[in-house]
Amino acid sequence: MDTTGALSTVNIGDFTTEAGATIENVVIAYQAWGEFRGDNVILIEHALTGDSDAADWWCGVLGPGLALDTDRFCVVCTNVLGGCKGSTGPSTPDRNGVALGSRFPAISIRDQVAAERIFIEKLGIERVHAVIGGSMGGARTLEWALMFPELVDAILVLAVSARASAWQIGIQTAQISAIERDPNWNNGDYYGATPPTDGLAAARRIAHLTYRGELEIDERFGTQAQAGENPLGPYRDSHQRFAVQSYLDYQGVKLTERFDAGSYVALTEALNRHDIGRGRGGLNKALASCMVPAMVAGVDTDILYPYHQQEHLSRNLGNLLAMAKISSPVGHDAFLTEVRQMDRIIRHFLSLAQGGPDEAVEIVL
Amino acid sequence: MDTTGALSTVNIGDFTTEAGATIENVVIAYQAWGEFRGDNVILIEHALTGDSDAADWWCGVLGPGLALDTDRFCVVCTNVLGGCKGSTGPSTPDRNGVALGSRFPAISIRDQVAAERIFIEKLGIERVHAVIGGSMGGARTLEWALMFPELVDAILVLAVSARASAWQIGIQTAQISAIERDPNWNNGDYYGATPPTDGLAAARRIAHLTYRGELEIDERFGTQAQAGENPLGPYRDSHQRFAVQSYLDYQGVKLTERFDAGSYVALTEALNRHDIGRGRGGLNKALASCMVPAMVAGVDTDILYPYHQQEHLSRNLGNLLAMAKISSPVGHDAFLTEVRQMDRIIRHFLSLAQGGPDEAVEIVL
Repeated sequence: MDTTGALSTVNIGDFTTEAGATIENVVIAYQAWGEFRGDNVILIEHALTGDSDAADWWCGVLGPGLALDTDRFCVVCTNVLGGCKGSTGPSTPDRNGVALGSRFPAISIRDQVAAERIFIEKLGIERVHAVIGGSMGGARTLEWALMFPELVDAILVLAVSARASAWQIGIQTAQISAIERDPNWNNGDYYGATPPTDGLAAARRIAHLTYRGELEIDERFGTQAQAGENPLGPYRDSHQRFAVQSYLDYQGVKLTERFDAGSYVALTEALNRHDIGRGRGGLNKALASCMVPAMVAGVDTDILYPYHQQEHLSRNLGNLLAMAKISSPVGHDAFLTEVRQMDRIIRHFLSLAQGGPDEAVEIVL
Repeated sequence: MDTTGALSTVNIGDFTTEAGATIENVVIAYQAWGEFRGDNVILIEHALTGDSDAADWWCGVLGPGLALDTDRFCVVCTNVLGGCKGSTGPSTPDRNGVALGSRFPAISIRDQVAAERIFIEKLGIERVHAVIGGSMGGARTLEWALMFPELVDAILVLAVSARASAWQIGIQTAQISAIERDPNWNNGDYYGATPPTDGLAAARRIAHLTYRGELEIDERFGTQAQAGENPLGPYRDSHQRFAVQSYLDYQGVKLTERFDAGSYVALTEALNRHDIGRGRGGLNKALASCMVPAMVAGVDTDILYPYHQQEHLSRNLGNLLAMAKISSPVGHDAFLTEVRQMDRIIRHFLSLAQGGPDEAVEIVL
């Protein structure tokens, strides 16, 4: 295993999805930091448009002496199956050099975890001390504990739910639809031609409004006009914008410069299929059966995964270590941005995971 | 004035908008119920895709013996300027029979109210006993009290804010963008050709997720598959849906059958421009200056106009009669659907407006 933090890949062979489609020659990309000592692996699960470079997107908590202490732990982060940052996804060429596109099947969160499980085996990792993730990464973290409890010492689940809610499926489908309605989408087979950037930007604009707190966005932008533009003119003009429109346009365009629309659709679809209860006798029975020690945290202003969903997890998980509320105007993204609180949560979790108090506690941040 | 409830129209002449564009020969459509006795007019302001038929969409509270008692009051409801149910809007033909389309200017909530003020004058109404409205209708109700306080005895403002929030502008712009991205939109000049129904349906699907409570939608649909469809198949297929997708598709298609995309864009743009504070020394100064007795109500689960926005109104309005919280899983639409609570609120408001207690009270529903 390369633990220098460099991007590496592992071929895990052909992979058959939960729904029965096979992807040939699947590659999983990863980065790792800190010496591997057998029992000191922490697996980090990134969010929808994240990647394996957790030392970058979680730089405040990952590094020597930080909460995810690379002097103590071997921290591993893969790019998710279906992604576009080194692991196999819709943009990956087949053996003839043609991108998979629409031939890349629908995947579930369980498929992502099953692929990662093969990956760690290939890497010689026999046991994972902790799996930690937020949002889509939190969904994967939960599935790790349900699918492979014998391999995981403890999990830290952030800003996610036990299954997709109908509201989430609705808003996620609106994003998929924005991409599908782009004339360049071509049913997902646009590689080598013009990509559906307008559609992807439109999807991201919608998504971003669920990633940020309503009051935080309002405090920053209110009804201000974008500098040099007049959104109150006599005729509507999409180039004469409110500041918040410009901000969302920027967020949309920025994503199109670093992310593939096909991966966005594949991973959003995986989120639609997220359901801990499927085939396990229902949601609460599945959660109750989960004996891997678990800590759950959520954000008080989260629009996408409202805090009551993390309360539901904490009430029903079979072996709860602790529950924490991240207090922030930022909304869903707070698990990425509120570094001080995340530092406390992760340190507390790792202490409990190594044999802290027996009873579930609510920590004060 | 026709008070039989039939749809009638009044020509208010040429109208110049706040931003300085002129619309020729503006017509305002209306319906009215109950004998006009000079001082007994109640003006109802409909929401974004509503119309003048308040006896239909508010049938539980409007009629003989009901809260909006047509035996006592002359209840008048116009179709808003910019709409498509009889009043002048983008789909209205010019003198040559060509729909205005992109020549219909951007309008503000204030323009809607200014046009309605000319309308009531033409109708011989010299004073309005009460103005009542929710959502976009609530924005108009507020502007009535700010623009023409001398003409209004009292206002009842439901499920709205003092100005568009940045989040609202964001989600509303996402809807406008969904329509603009429809190849049939043609900059708003599609009349006589194929209308941008796909875009309008996409806009409505997004909007509907802000009109309904997150928990209510989840209780109804959860992760259920639509009957006869399998959303968990090996390949993603937009015809294999979750039940909530089918529900939202239905809401989208249903709107395209009764509403014009050009009006949807014009009225959504008016909501983006909603700002009680503009040109009045800011939001709270404007609200404090409002001496028209006002009652404010909101919904505890409203995603679009969160309850804290109605609390803000009630803290800052210059002459608050009362504040009420509608308790409902339904979300924003509760002001339309929670008939029993609305009945109580309207009766309480009308009693206060006719000289009830001097002090602001919070009513128990």
